[in-house]
Formats: sequence, structure tokens, C-alpha cells
Amino acid sequence: MGIMTKLTAEPGTRDRIVEAADALFYQQGFEKTSFADIADTVQLSRGNFYYHFKTKDDILDAVITLRAARTQSMLDAWTQSAVTPAASLRCFAEMLIQNRQEIQRYGCPVGTLCAELTKLDHPAQGGAGMIFSQFRNWLRAQFEAMGHDRQSDALAMHLLSRSQGIAALANAFHDEAFIRHEVDLIDAWLASLASTSGAVTRPRRKNSP
Amino acid sequence: MGIMTKLTAEPGTRDRIVEAADALFYQQGFEKTSFADIADTVQLSRGNFYYHFKTKDDILDAVITLRAARTQSMLDAWTQSAVTPAASLRCFAEMLIQNRQEIQRYGCPVGTLCAELTKLDHPAQGGAGMIFSQFRNWLRAQFEAMGHDRQSDALAMHLLSRSQGIAALANAFHDEAFIRHEVDLIDAWLASLASTSGAVTRPRRKNSP
Repeated sequence: MGIMTKLTAEPGTRDRIVEAADALFYQQGFEKTSFADIADTVQLSRGNFYYHFKTKDDILDAVITLRAARTQSMLDAWTQSAVTPAASLRCFAEMLIQNRQEIQRYGCPVGTLCAELTKLDHPAQGGAGMIFSQFRNWLRAQFEAMGHDRQSDALAMHLLSRSQGIAALANAFHDEAFIRHEVDLIDAWLASLASTSGAVTRPRRKNSP
Repeated sequence: MGIMTKLTAEPGTRDRIVEAADALFYQQGFEKTSFADIADTVQLSRGNFYYHFKTKDDILDAVITLRAARTQSMLDAWTQSAVTPAASLRCFAEMLIQNRQEIQRYGCPVGTLCAELTKLDHPAQGGAGMIFSQFRNWLRAQFEAMGHDRQSDALAMHLLSRSQGIAALANAFHDEAFIRHEVDLIDAWLASLASTSGAVTRPRRKNSP
């Protein structure tokens, strides 16, 4: 059938499958999304599709790997763009406003996938949970840099939790004003933490005199 | 076939179907749960089952009606048992500790069903969201009784949001200590609100930490 030959000459196909699955899992859920849904979106024949992925679980693993890589890139960009750890944390809160349309329609991609896979008792639930851990570890590092020491992990979990709650209710009530009000509360909370830690004026390592 | 005769003599069957579906929708999700799953749990023949419900969506409507009734009973009980509005609000926070096992395994039943039905763009998403509104309206009434006036709805949404975030992360990380720590933070926040509201508070500490 020459499938091998055809596909090795088409390098972007696997990526297109994973991108399509990523969007469908987010928009309509993992369980609801069928192999056929994904193949239809990418407009692939079954043969072409099966060359890349044999099961929906294989696609899920690839989607989680893609999301983990994107999350790391985003966290790295926040770290590099912000002058202080407190400013980095505001990037995290700002994400809720930047993604407000998707959040209102589909909730948080991390939280909703985790919740669904946990209910399904799916083997990939740990992998999906690792994306939460990426955020948690990065948030903890910012609070540590602000001087919060042993409190840092609890503060990271608190902020992650606040963001999850905001996404859940913004999704249920489709309420953008609610998102903005809650992000203002987070900013005020972060400002109070920065002022009590004494680290608000401490610049990051780069360009130190 | 005498199905009518048989079933009218068996008054608990419909309730048993709805109870079983309620648990299965919570534990494994709505989309994942099949008609057959529910019938197997209740150990009913297809004929018996179809007498009561023709579609899974009909069962979902009945489950949402059941959950709404239970929610109202719980809220009424909190209102009646607590001496002050602040004490009522602590009942809400305490719910997270009382339900900590289920929350760690399956998340919040209200939030996870809402999120799933929104992704499915299911006609019942509004009904599921009404259960959030029951909590929101009750919480708002407590804050109003504490004297928070026009702030009351925002405070209600904030507290509801905090509870959703706690449930989401407790589910992802299976972390009971996190739940208890966050509930302590909510209690401290409620205490600070009670003292600033100017309302006379006579808290009766029936739930020691």
C-alpha cells in the first residue's frame, strides 16, 4: 500500500494529529473525543492515522507531552520577562485574563483533563497531574525567591488553587467580570506578600550591579 | 408483558436508578457511564429500565433534580443549625473536610459535572449550573446577614471559588493536609470578615480544628 513511503514524506502529520487531539480533548473532553473525530479534523485516512497512533491512549500521552513542553516554555518566558519574582507571579495571574475566552467556554485545560482522567482512573492521570506539578514547582520557586522559605509550597498551592477555582466558576457562570475581580484580589494578595517579605525591590540576578 | 403491573408494584425502582446514576456520574463521569452500567448496578432488565427512563439524558435530568433537592436540604440544615451567619459559612467550609475522601477521589460533584456538561455543550448544563447558583445565593444571603450589603455576591463567589480550587487540587494531588490547611485559611478569612462587618457575632465553635 506504500503507506510508509507516503508518510515519511509528510513530516508534519504526527504533529497535526497531536494538535487536533489537544484541541478536541480540551473543547469536548477526552472520553467524548473519538479516533474518528481526530482523523476527521486532520482529514486523514485511517491508514495514515494508524501509522502514527494505534490507540487513543497513545495520542493522549503525546498530547500530555506537548502540553508539558508548552507549559515549560511559558514558565521560562515568565521567569525571563519579569524583573522580580512578584512580577513573575503576576504573569501567572494575568494568564487567567489572557485566556478568559477559552476558560469561560471550556474551563482550565490542566484542571479539566486531570479531573476527567481521575474519574476514568486512566493510567495517564499521573502524567496529566505532572503539569499541575510544573506550575506548583515554578510558583514555589518564585515564593522562595521572595523570601518565604518553608511557606513557599503552601503559598504555591494556595495560588494554584485560587486559579483553579476562578476557572471553574468562570466556566460555570461565563462571567468575565468575575475573573477580573478575582485577579485583582490575587494581585493585592501578592502585593501584600511582597511587602511583608521585604523582597519587593530585590531585582533578579540578571544585570545586577 | 405485564411490565406496568409489575413496576407499579415496585415503587423504589425509579429512585434506585437515579441513585445509581448519581453515583456513577460522579465517580466515572456522565459521558463514560452507559445505560448498561446503570442497569447493571441496579440489576434491572432492559424492559424494566426503559419503563422508567428512555434516554440517558432523562436520567441526567432526574439526577440533577435529586442533587438540587439534597443541596437545598443541606443548606437549610446549615442555616438552622448555626447561631450566626458566620457560623453558617463555616459549615460550608467544613463540608470540604467532611467530604475529603470523595473529593480526593472524584473532585467536587457540582464542579466536575458542570465542567463536563459545558464541554459536551449538553442541554442540561444550565440545570447543573443551577446547583452552583443554589450555593451562591445561600452564601450571599449569609454575607448579607453579616452586613456586607453590596459586597455580598462578590464574597459569595470568592468563597465558592476557593472551595472549587481546593477540590480540584485535592483531587489532583490526593492531599488531605492541603484541604485542612486551606479550610483553616478560609476560617481565618471569615473571622476577619465577621470582625470588620460590624455585625454582632456569637460564634458557637461546634467544629474544633
